[in-house]
Amino acid sequence: MTPEAGEAAAPLLSRDIAFRRVGVVAKAESAEAMRTAAELDEWLVRRGIEVRLEEASLPGGVGGARAVLAGAELDLVVVLGGDGTLLSVARSLERTTPIIGVNMGSLGFLTEVNRGDLYPTLVRVLAGEFTLEERSLLSAEVQRSNGERLRYRVLNDAVIAKTALSRIIELALVVDGNLVGNFRADGLIISTPTGSTAYNLSAGGPILYPQLPVAVITPICAHTLSLRPLVVPDTSRIEVTLHTELEEVYLTLDGQEGAELHHRDRVVIGRSDTVVHLIKAAGRSFYDSLRGKLRWGG
Amino acid sequence: MTPEAGEAAAPLLSRDIAFRRVGVVAKAESAEAMRTAAELDEWLVRRGIEVRLEEASLPGGVGGARAVLAGAELDLVVVLGGDGTLLSVARSLERTTPIIGVNMGSLGFLTEVNRGDLYPTLVRVLAGEFTLEERSLLSAEVQRSNGERLRYRVLNDAVIAKTALSRIIELALVVDGNLVGNFRADGLIISTPTGSTAYNLSAGGPILYPQLPVAVITPICAHTLSLRPLVVPDTSRIEVTLHTELEEVYLTLDGQEGAELHHRDRVVIGRSDTVVHLIKAAGRSFYDSLRGKLRWGG
Amino acid sequence: MTPEAGEAAAPLLSRDIAFRRVGVVAKAESAEAMRTAAELDEWLVRRGIEVRLEEASLPGGVGGARAVLAGAELDLVVVLGGDGTLLSVARSLERTTPIIGVNMGSLGFLTEVNRGDLYPTLVRVLAGEFTLEERSLLSAEVQRSNGERLRYRVLNDAVIAKTALSRIIELALVVDGNLVGNFRADGLIISTPTGSTAYNLSAGGPILYPQLPVAVITPICAHTLSLRPLVVPDTSRIEVTLHTELEEVYLTLDGQEGAELHHRDRVVIGRSDTVVHLIKAAGRSFYDSLRGKLRWGG
Amino acid sequence: MTPEAGEAAAPLLSRDIAFRRVGVVAKAESAEAMRTAAELDEWLVRRGIEVRLEEASLPGGVGGARAVLAGAELDLVVVLGGDGTLLSVARSLERTTPIIGVNMGSLGFLTEVNRGDLYPTLVRVLAGEFTLEERSLLSAEVQRSNGERLRYRVLNDAVIAKTALSRIIELALVVDGNLVGNFRADGLIISTPTGSTAYNLSAGGPILYPQLPVAVITPICAHTLSLRPLVVPDTSRIEVTLHTELEEVYLTLDGQEGAELHHRDRVVIGRSDTVVHLIKAAGRSFYDSLRGKLRWGG
Repeated sequence: MTPEAGEAAAPLLSRDIAFRRVGVVAKAESAEAMRTAAELDEWLVRRGIEVRLEEASLPGGVGGARAVLAGAELDLVVVLGGDGTLLSVARSLERTTPIIGVNMGSLGFLTEVNRGDLYPTLVRVLAGEFTLEERSLLSAEVQRSNGERLRYRVLNDAVIAKTALSRIIELALVVDGNLVGNFRADGLIISTPTGSTAYNLSAGGPILYPQLPVAVITPICAHTLSLRPLVVPDTSRIEVTLHTELEEVYLTLDGQEGAELHHRDRVVIGRSDTVVHLIKAAGRSFYDSLRGKLRWGG
Repeated sequence: MTPEAGEAAAPLLSRDIAFRRVGVVAKAESAEAMRTAAELDEWLVRRGIEVRLEEASLPGGVGGARAVLAGAELDLVVVLGGDGTLLSVARSLERTTPIIGVNMGSLGFLTEVNRGDLYPTLVRVLAGEFTLEERSLLSAEVQRSNGERLRYRVLNDAVIAKTALSRIIELALVVDGNLVGNFRADGLIISTPTGSTAYNLSAGGPILYPQLPVAVITPICAHTLSLRPLVVPDTSRIEVTLHTELEEVYLTLDGQEGAELHHRDRVVIGRSDTVVHLIKAAGRSFYDSLRGKLRWGG
Repeated sequence: MTPEAGEAAAPLLSRDIAFRRVGVVAKAESAEAMRTAAELDEWLVRRGIEVRLEEASLPGGVGGARAVLAGAELDLVVVLGGDGTLLSVARSLERTTPIIGVNMGSLGFLTEVNRGDLYPTLVRVLAGEFTLEERSLLSAEVQRSNGERLRYRVLNDAVIAKTALSRIIELALVVDGNLVGNFRADGLIISTPTGSTAYNLSAGGPILYPQLPVAVITPICAHTLSLRPLVVPDTSRIEVTLHTELEEVYLTLDGQEGAELHHRDRVVIGRSDTVVHLIKAAGRSFYDSLRGKLRWGG
Repeated sequence: MTPEAGEAAAPLLSRDIAFRRVGVVAKAESAEAMRTAAELDEWLVRRGIEVRLEEASLPGGVGGARAVLAGAELDLVVVLGGDGTLLSVARSLERTTPIIGVNMGSLGFLTEVNRGDLYPTLVRVLAGEFTLEERSLLSAEVQRSNGERLRYRVLNDAVIAKTALSRIIELALVVDGNLVGNFRADGLIISTPTGSTAYNLSAGGPILYPQLPVAVITPICAHTLSLRPLVVPDTSRIEVTLHTELEEVYLTLDGQEGAELHHRDRVVIGRSDTVVHLIKAAGRSFYDSLRGKLRWGG
């Protein structure tokens, strides 16, 4: 346990940033978020900050998410909504821009500033009193047997799963060129550490410390009873091939975007070149969040 | 541990049956099943037995199943296929008719006669050397908020689940008029003992001895981490109400039939008035099947 | 879903009882329970009721429990303590005597009367305003290879498990004369429906409705990954044989009594001839208890 | 997915080693291992290699393991036994010495050379045709409330658990100074990636790729149902404090050594300064081992 190693694992990065152009993204479905966005716009402009205001719409179902802030050159993004809104912003950003998440309802794992703490927190952030926490993204590429390629990146997870109206499917999993197995299951989740507390947790996967250089592959309702969550280096090349012909199967990205998969289509997942920078100003550790959200006795 | 009690739990029923009219149902997708059906037809006719020959088609996806043998008055049904084919026959039969399942591939839990043992087994069955095992069915009724009613019965399970392209859904579970809870999950499985080794097992539910007077309610990827499979009397009135508005949710029956569910729709599940009689001639106990299929060390 | 069937599953029995002799058992380790016992003694005597006052001692570790009220002829037993105290009383009683459990701390599954509701509840009970809920017990017999026999009964569970200082053990499980399998695990829990919310739940077993005629066999940390909880008729004869030679293994009863097991020793578990009658006066259903204790959203 | 990162995760290290002094450790309880050791001694001596021959005794129960090869200056250790024998050698070695494991029974995760392949494999190894795979160890220190300190290191896991004759215990978990929670459980496993396929897997923990810089904390039969396995950096300082007074609780190391824990004792776990070098000559990847041992379909 050398001090150097301990520091490497710690989520703190010091940085010198001047916030001149700020993006504000509000969840369109939340009246409270929309009201807060208008108010925050004024508040920032009064401080001489240029503001780009956007709505992120996340209605029911996968497919509601759309790119926001694409092409924008910003120094900071304030997300007013929930973890879902922050996910859609994180996937859309083309450059690594610090993001701060403000929750309109209950605390999220990503949106850890309460609505009531918004302005005091922003005052501290604009004064440079914060740390940046790096979160890695995964890239996912659909390689269709007809040659078509679709590319995505995710902050939480890429999920390959059958629909409710399909029978059990068979998937082949290959990691770094090694066959891991052929599995019959409802699907497979490939999750980042950030996504480990989301769908992965519901499916029986482990919680991963956010800065670990890993991904976790977790089966959904595996028919193969000995199949267990598998944690691999995030530098691994994870290939999932669909071996079932007639069933409806989808790839979903962060639970917000989707693409249909066909027989013999392959999904290749690996570490993305881009990362996300979350602003931490609340002083809560990852373990504090876990203890609070999962009601582990204090 | 009185002997009487032990006998009550045993799956044996003696019965005196003359098999004059026999239905033969072959899985349409299996060439081997279709060939065997033609051969068996001749074999039975040579023995003076009237045969009704049918195909059961189970292509990919829910919705492939269709009623076979509806309206037929039969003394015995021979199913040539897999457990799926037998499930579709069991749901279709209007009167309780003994069923014998012959597996065309690997042994199933329901189709426990191997193809190679077909004729020796039938000779014994026609001579009355068999026992009947009773399996209960569940009834499921969709009660839509617009007054519409849809009625089904299942031998394995009724599943209420979101599609791959939907977000997590919220369901209210009420048993015998008591609120059990409001759960966020991918869905809920309500399974008979017969279905306990199918989807229920993949989702983490327990294995239930086939003749138990119970049903098991098992969550699929519950967001509520303290939610666990719940075994209730099969006489219970189980109500599941969909509290989510915009997501696509389906009720599926034995994984073969389906109905879309809408906001505020309720599914009411209880014991069906009808039962299924499986012919047991192979001498294998339920525990033998388990040990073999799940590779529990012998 | 006939009304008759529904009633059969309901936990209500009407009964006409005059409570002339009442046993009061207080948890010795709880000063509050001991104080309440003295107070209750007076309260009952003032009402012309004969009282037998006892302490139940449950210090740390298995082996602390001792028989209380053995030989007593009582019309009612009031337990002041927690679920553990009630378990020890239930195992000790030689005749089926109604028990009412009063919790000194947080609500239990068995002790569902709060300390503050003690007297109002007793007034109603003495006036006959209550129902009796029957709970079945399991019998457990150790059959040693040297011929020795030890007999127990349990309200919650019989657990066969290795100690912390032992390696993994091998157990053979036979139900009704059928080999279920040879398993490598830390141990096996055989639980009643009453015990299903206790150790069984922690080990991944299902929750069982209290009046079901079943027992559940749940592995503890099975090395055999396909091993799952198995629900069987409570009339089954469940035999567990220890196939490991050198490790320390114990049978524990309700987590309160214990017996060391040796190589080739067999434990035979089945339904006990005796039952327990719990007094229900609080108007809470089993599902209410679950929802409250497991924090399933209301 | 940069190539550099991919290589960092790969288990291959090239090295130039002359094997002049070889330790041979045989499992004392295996006649086959003892015979093979004598034979191998001759075989090595004929090749001019100095041999140090030792027995490792692993009878039943924790406490059987004893230090072997302590103080020896060796270039290579050949272990003839099972994974357990290799674990005891790995903990005993004072300097990082390449180890090759030869299994006398079924293939292990650590002893991946079959008895029949022993000599062909050694010929290749002596000729330098092998790779070295680094495995990290964890250190564990017992800090008693009376000031006493006990230090250990483990290749698989450190387990804090109650005995079969104890009630549920309460443990406080603190990671890097942050309270994670106070848990009621049978115990906690803190496992290396190497140990993830051992006890951790039986308790529901994930499989970890062997070279990941992580440790996993997995509860054993947690009473707190929302408690899940937690993967943390192996540079973390993991502290577990026993908050229960009267129950018997033990720390066990690799399932082979043990120390009793008392009320308020703390166990501090972190990365050990030492590592283990396993010789890989069989050409099987980690995923091949998994697929074979867990019977994931090929």
